[in-house]
Amino acid sequence: MKLADRLEHLGTETAFAVSAEAAAFAAEGNKVYPFHLGDMNIKTPQNIIDAAFKAASDGKTGYCPNYGIPALRECLAQEISDTRGVSYSADNVVIQPGGKPSIGKFVLALMNPGDEVLYPSPGYPIYESQIEFHGGRAVPYGFKEGNQNFELDPDAIARSITPRTRALIYNDLHNPTGAESSAEEMRAIAEIAIKNDLIVLSDEAYFDIRYAGDSKSIVTLPGMHERSVILYTFSKKYAMTGWRLGASIGPKVIVDCVAKLNVNDESCSNHFIQYGAIEALTGSQTGATEIRKELEKRRNKAVDILDTIPGIRCYRPNATFYLFPNVTELMRTKGMENDYEGFRRRVMHETGVSFCTREHFGRAQDTESQRYIRLAYSGIDAQEIEVGLGNFKQWAQTST
Amino acid sequence: MKLADRLEHLGTETAFAVSAEAAAFAAEGNKVYPFHLGDMNIKTPQNIIDAAFKAASDGKTGYCPNYGIPALRECLAQEISDTRGVSYSADNVVIQPGGKPSIGKFVLALMNPGDEVLYPSPGYPIYESQIEFHGGRAVPYGFKEGNQNFELDPDAIARSITPRTRALIYNDLHNPTGAESSAEEMRAIAEIAIKNDLIVLSDEAYFDIRYAGDSKSIVTLPGMHERSVILYTFSKKYAMTGWRLGASIGPKVIVDCVAKLNVNDESCSNHFIQYGAIEALTGSQTGATEIRKELEKRRNKAVDILDTIPGIRCYRPNATFYLFPNVTELMRTKGMENDYEGFRRRVMHETGVSFCTREHFGRAQDTESQRYIRLAYSGIDAQEIEVGLGNFKQWAQTST
Repeated sequence: MKLADRLEHLGTETAFAVSAEAAAFAAEGNKVYPFHLGDMNIKTPQNIIDAAFKAASDGKTGYCPNYGIPALRECLAQEISDTRGVSYSADNVVIQPGGKPSIGKFVLALMNPGDEVLYPSPGYPIYESQIEFHGGRAVPYGFKEGNQNFELDPDAIARSITPRTRALIYNDLHNPTGAESSAEEMRAIAEIAIKNDLIVLSDEAYFDIRYAGDSKSIVTLPGMHERSVILYTFSKKYAMTGWRLGASIGPKVIVDCVAKLNVNDESCSNHFIQYGAIEALTGSQTGATEIRKELEKRRNKAVDILDTIPGIRCYRPNATFYLFPNVTELMRTKGMENDYEGFRRRVMHETGVSFCTREHFGRAQDTESQRYIRLAYSGIDAQEIEVGLGNFKQWAQTST
Repeated sequence: MKLADRLEHLGTETAFAVSAEAAAFAAEGNKVYPFHLGDMNIKTPQNIIDAAFKAASDGKTGYCPNYGIPALRECLAQEISDTRGVSYSADNVVIQPGGKPSIGKFVLALMNPGDEVLYPSPGYPIYESQIEFHGGRAVPYGFKEGNQNFELDPDAIARSITPRTRALIYNDLHNPTGAESSAEEMRAIAEIAIKNDLIVLSDEAYFDIRYAGDSKSIVTLPGMHERSVILYTFSKKYAMTGWRLGASIGPKVIVDCVAKLNVNDESCSNHFIQYGAIEALTGSQTGATEIRKELEKRRNKAVDILDTIPGIRCYRPNATFYLFPNVTELMRTKGMENDYEGFRRRVMHETGVSFCTREHFGRAQDTESQRYIRLAYSGIDAQEIEVGLGNFKQWAQTST
């Protein structure tokens, strides 16, 4: 069977392979502590489920508009206007079956083959995959360790711009590092975008998952909302990952293109679950608050233990549900400095702790000398975090 | 804002424009009889809704595998094996957010830019759009009026094959014509596919919407299941259009590609609604039977009236919920033989009856001399059909 040539450029989420390995290891009767996937083991608040169910029982089981139902677009425009400090109307919102579809549709709507798109690496691997699958050149930018958190290097980003650079993907409150831009850093990124007339995909999947301070969107900065598409998702704040519901929010001309892609790709998002999303945005926020508190407890538990493990250095990010500890020293101690996969597998087999490494988040750049792993704490309870990372600590303290 | 060049080749469903016009006309206080959209005004059976929401309340609100949940893949493999007479396993099934996504993913997985793909025109307009959007050449094949139904012309199809022809899209039980291939015709299509080593997308969206006889799939014919992908959807049989749930079913190598596209495009389909689909396939079929009976009643009502309208000729198809009457004579009588849009608007404004015309189903071919409209009876009750088509008849009988 001869497949299309373009599939050679299609990437994937290799984290799923880690997930499959962990499942196989567990099926052999082993205890696994799952830090590898950004899924949530927290149920969607019942009021949201009930609202969707009521809509289905009321007959909202036929098609809805390809843009999404008007009431949800209006609620979401209001929510984004309130939290980003920029005025959006329903015309700026197109509902998507998840956060992820906003990536591929952004690329299809704005990037020509041969165009260059800047994206974070380490970063969500679908950026790189979608850019290259549709014939673009994916140009990575990295992070460096700063005082409190990972930092971008705006000068390095500016230097990698060419006449073919068309767009920049920006994921503040960042997967996998948990990085949050300082005000200066965000301003510098905005300046680069404006100066070089770049369109920005602002992946704000973790905007509402934060434990201190306030999230800020790059669209708030002057000149930015006109050139930015916000990737919004219901997945994290309301523990709705499996619902597959999100939105692209931005200039009407782009929103209209995305809506036309919807007509071609999937007609519309599921109709009745959109009523659940309205309840999520406008109903009781008790569920969302509890989810955030639970995640904060887990973060504290995990960082508290990681801080005591020799050979590991870890920030305590105020947002996302990811930790990206530097394990260079530990890998060196174990004689595995250049063997991410060997290290990952050995830790899983000897401690049950399963995680992804830097290698699962886009191609590594030549200049990277430090080694990192990613721990997601969205899918594992605090008590299990304590036992799992306790095992990991004991293993780390054992010589070789 | 400079958009990507590829958008110039992106089509749409112009039926939505008709829908918008009808809605605007209704909003002005006019009565509209909606025959324009293939949506259903019938609710999903409650046992299916209940099963989905039990799953959500039980916590099936996180991600599921990109292929879909194993239990649904197994049920669907069994269903397709039983009804198509070919053995499929869960490995041959990948769940999709609707029937439509199987079209774009088939094209992406199998067609290179410059390849030619045969598709029916009139036909579902997304075939043409997806082929051309991804750089292929969309080569139409048409229908001719036969004894009982519309018929294909296998010789004409064979003549349009070139060394660049890669795939054939086949939609037996056809939207918009209601056409059903005879055994000879289906065999001839299969022979063409095998002889020219074409991959076939068999759009079987209406396989279960039939009122007499049995549906047959082209995958049943020798040599065909190895080269065919079935587009399956839960939308029609169970009145689940707004759920967005379907599947691509075919050779594992293609299914695996489609699953990898899922990872990139939307991760997975909604998790908990897949439990509703299991209930649809394995639970009480009372709901599906009632839906089919209701549709049959509507078909009979509509055809009975159309048969009495001067200048109209209409088949009584045993499948689908579409009628495709020949209105050449009526349009000529009204002096509008070459003005599809004018005719459509005038009928809506003067009778309230809203429908699509041949022009909404792909580019017309030069050789077409007859004029057709499409009436969908899935979204209008029998009583309204009687009143609406009664108005239409009266209008047709009035000179000019």
